[in-house]
Amino acid sequence: MVKNNVGRDIPQEHADQYGVYDDLFTNVKPYKEASRDLKPVKPTDTKLLGSIREAIEKTGLKDGMTISFHHHFREGDFVINMVMEEIAKMGIKNLSIAPSSIANVHEPLIEHIKNGVITNITSSGLRDKLGAAISDGIMENPVVIRSHGGRARAIAAGDIHIDVAFLGAPSSDAYGNANGTVGKAVCGSLGYAMIDAKYADQVVIITDTLVSYPNSPISIPQTDVDYVVEVDAIGDPSGIAKGATRFTTNPKELLIAEYANKVITQSPYYKNGFSVQTGTGGAALAVARFLRDSMIKDDVKAAFALGGITNQMVELLEDGLVEKLIDVQDFDALSGQSLGRNENHIEVDANFYASPLSKGSAINQLDICILSALEVDTDYNVNVMTGSDGVIRGASGGHSDTSAASKMSLVISPLVRGRIPTVVDSVNTVITPGASVDVVVTEIGVAINPARQDLIEHFTTLDIPQYTIEELKEKAYAIVGNPEPIQYGDKVVALIEYRDGTLIDVVRNV
Amino acid sequence: MVKNNVGRDIPQEHADQYGVYDDLFTNVKPYKEASRDLKPVKPTDTKLLGSIREAIEKTGLKDGMTISFHHHFREGDFVINMVMEEIAKMGIKNLSIAPSSIANVHEPLIEHIKNGVITNITSSGLRDKLGAAISDGIMENPVVIRSHGGRARAIAAGDIHIDVAFLGAPSSDAYGNANGTVGKAVCGSLGYAMIDAKYADQVVIITDTLVSYPNSPISIPQTDVDYVVEVDAIGDPSGIAKGATRFTTNPKELLIAEYANKVITQSPYYKNGFSVQTGTGGAALAVARFLRDSMIKDDVKAAFALGGITNQMVELLEDGLVEKLIDVQDFDALSGQSLGRNENHIEVDANFYASPLSKGSAINQLDICILSALEVDTDYNVNVMTGSDGVIRGASGGHSDTSAASKMSLVISPLVRGRIPTVVDSVNTVITPGASVDVVVTEIGVAINPARQDLIEHFTTLDIPQYTIEELKEKAYAIVGNPEPIQYGDKVVALIEYRDGTLIDVVRNV
Repeated sequence: MVKNNVGRDIPQEHADQYGVYDDLFTNVKPYKEASRDLKPVKPTDTKLLGSIREAIEKTGLKDGMTISFHHHFREGDFVINMVMEEIAKMGIKNLSIAPSSIANVHEPLIEHIKNGVITNITSSGLRDKLGAAISDGIMENPVVIRSHGGRARAIAAGDIHIDVAFLGAPSSDAYGNANGTVGKAVCGSLGYAMIDAKYADQVVIITDTLVSYPNSPISIPQTDVDYVVEVDAIGDPSGIAKGATRFTTNPKELLIAEYANKVITQSPYYKNGFSVQTGTGGAALAVARFLRDSMIKDDVKAAFALGGITNQMVELLEDGLVEKLIDVQDFDALSGQSLGRNENHIEVDANFYASPLSKGSAINQLDICILSALEVDTDYNVNVMTGSDGVIRGASGGHSDTSAASKMSLVISPLVRGRIPTVVDSVNTVITPGASVDVVVTEIGVAINPARQDLIEHFTTLDIPQYTIEELKEKAYAIVGNPEPIQYGDKVVALIEYRDGTLIDVVRNV
Repeated sequence: MVKNNVGRDIPQEHADQYGVYDDLFTNVKPYKEASRDLKPVKPTDTKLLGSIREAIEKTGLKDGMTISFHHHFREGDFVINMVMEEIAKMGIKNLSIAPSSIANVHEPLIEHIKNGVITNITSSGLRDKLGAAISDGIMENPVVIRSHGGRARAIAAGDIHIDVAFLGAPSSDAYGNANGTVGKAVCGSLGYAMIDAKYADQVVIITDTLVSYPNSPISIPQTDVDYVVEVDAIGDPSGIAKGATRFTTNPKELLIAEYANKVITQSPYYKNGFSVQTGTGGAALAVARFLRDSMIKDDVKAAFALGGITNQMVELLEDGLVEKLIDVQDFDALSGQSLGRNENHIEVDANFYASPLSKGSAINQLDICILSALEVDTDYNVNVMTGSDGVIRGASGGHSDTSAASKMSLVISPLVRGRIPTVVDSVNTVITPGASVDVVVTEIGVAINPARQDLIEHFTTLDIPQYTIEELKEKAYAIVGNPEPIQYGDKVVALIEYRDGTLIDVVRNV
């Protein structure tokens, strides 16, 4: 075992392979970017194939290769299941899959794991039954959990080498120019897919809306695409929009949001030209609403809002409260449509959004980010991955990326959830190291990370109760009692990569 | 000496290094794409530097490295001379320069060659005094002439490895998001610069219009940029627009244009959804005008027009005669503005435009291209590089790219120019092999390449005089007499790469 810098024990073999987490930026070093094996396409070649099966055959996909998908269709995605079903029928085994994330709808992956079709997974998240099965120890090899920026990093650095990317596209021409703003199943930005398209040896575009050449706007260019397949349907629009959450009416969440907004608007960063990423949870959307009111009242305008975009952000843009949206992912139909329509709504890839190994990602320019938590501990470490029962059910997302890069990161969370404390001695799983978390906001008040003395000094006049993080924990424990320790097994079922590629934690079976 | 497949003698050492031209597509093979050495940019890093000198210092530029520039500012460019002057002052020597092309305004390069600052050049073209100096033998190492698609190929394949790209940008933010449609010196598309930005180890954006973050549209993204420098002026707008030519009033050129339009409109490709690249010479623009009238009369609409874009193409777009413009370069201010304004005017990079090693370039989708010629010979080989005196004064451009990839290539040219025949026994310098040239159009009629029996059969009813290419040559010689052979020296002053990277010809000193 090797103990890393957030005190987690990493088994030697994994520590040797990945290295262990040290600090936020010590592993951000010059490197040689990965490159792809490329088959040039001649004037007489055609890319349009008759079926997914034909595409799989043409790519020469075989046992042991790595394939990838994107998660822009979320719970409405048909692509992963369609492609995997065909691959399984063809008898191909021992594949590594590297989707940008996995949704509940991908439960059929469990069978493919059991049948040996899939033997390795890397993903931002694992939900529901697949998460439970992984936590139960269904796989021989641990899943590798990567943040959105960390996945872009891993691809650019060659840690993930994608042999074939199967990318669903709401529209494409027969030469592979694809976007997410036109078609039957509009998802908006294709930011996560764009990275796969750039680095994968071979790329198959799967679309249900084949348009004449040249399709535009061009999110994924023909120069990144080998084959195009038209299918009846790539996704269910109602499932695609499931990423969005409505405004909360929960009084506790509203209070958290109000406090978070006070932290933002009383911070040194709140001024004309500031920038913010709000996230998509109920409380986060409520923060956006309070912030909107404050910006109008104070006549403050933001230069940009970033990240997963919701209709609330689009309204800020359209009302002139935010100058530009930088969009790696859209969470509802309206934001997807805005991307296709509004020139100040800018589509970017995951590398541009959040990679620590890029020549500067957008989050490096970010003033304020609002993040959720399943747990936060007295070292300010945050868990957004495993539940209070130790079972994997979350997603790393952009959490550790934005918290590290932004000037002020707010973790918003109720002090307790039901009978479970949120502020704890030690989180079950560290996704985001406390070194990158600045302020924890609960419904009873805030705790400011002592590492941010500048903020502590600035916020002496903040009109919200302030506590130490230990005091918040004590209050949580006072309400619901000390949490019972989880009884983990010995098997490592998931490796948690920090965004720089080192291991910040592992998850064991339960 | 090795004789290549167009009968040109290539000195052994160069043949060994590059290979020699065989056929249009035999050397288009799978390969490993080049990659860059990348220095990640952390949140606290800034990219904005105080001067070009500081940028040169920060990049660590040293003797023997390769630097690049783009030619989107044409005769209005200040960037190459500014940067080279600073480099020369700093005492750096033995550089290879790899601009996408070179204009008359870059005459100061002659001094830098004489002083040993520049010892290698690759470019699409060489003009005026620099071309004459090169032909005179000023350089020890031959210049390497590459087509626009061939340059993109060479960069993607690693034949050109750019250590530092110095890219002028009409606008940029301090993090390097740059475009050519906003600013004091608008040039429109940054298509040639985008390739350098993607593959160069280090990229310096030089702008005279620094805007707030995030600048958009994003032609060159921050993720491809290391440093940003603001200067007073990057270019002279009147010189930038010098690439454009007005409609000709020359009756001979008008007749050629009328004939070319007849070939196009009576060809099998002229129908709804066709595509065309017209070029920018006087006769070429006249073709566009005739074609426009025909399209209106015949109610035929094009799917796209391609290539260097002029205001004539923009009018076709705005009048609904062409659905989309695919734009790697703009030749006048109006087209540059259109790119920033019209969503159907699409910016693409040189790889997307024309690289033979891409996953399919736009020219592969092109029906018809119209090309100029200094000379065309009885094997249909075309010279657009050396004058009748053997001196380098032209540019390879997209000539050999579009002629190879399009379904029908027209070379338009007067039969003679002054006392010089245009159709000859053997061109001075082969840029484009006859195998890719389909129809030669002169003011007395056309010659169709016998390799295109399908076109010969199709055009039996064409209402233009038809000749063999030998007959055209005889008629030219009958007017102006047989051309005197040029007295070349023994020194190879330029290597002419075919787009696939092999040598199709060399140029010797005169």
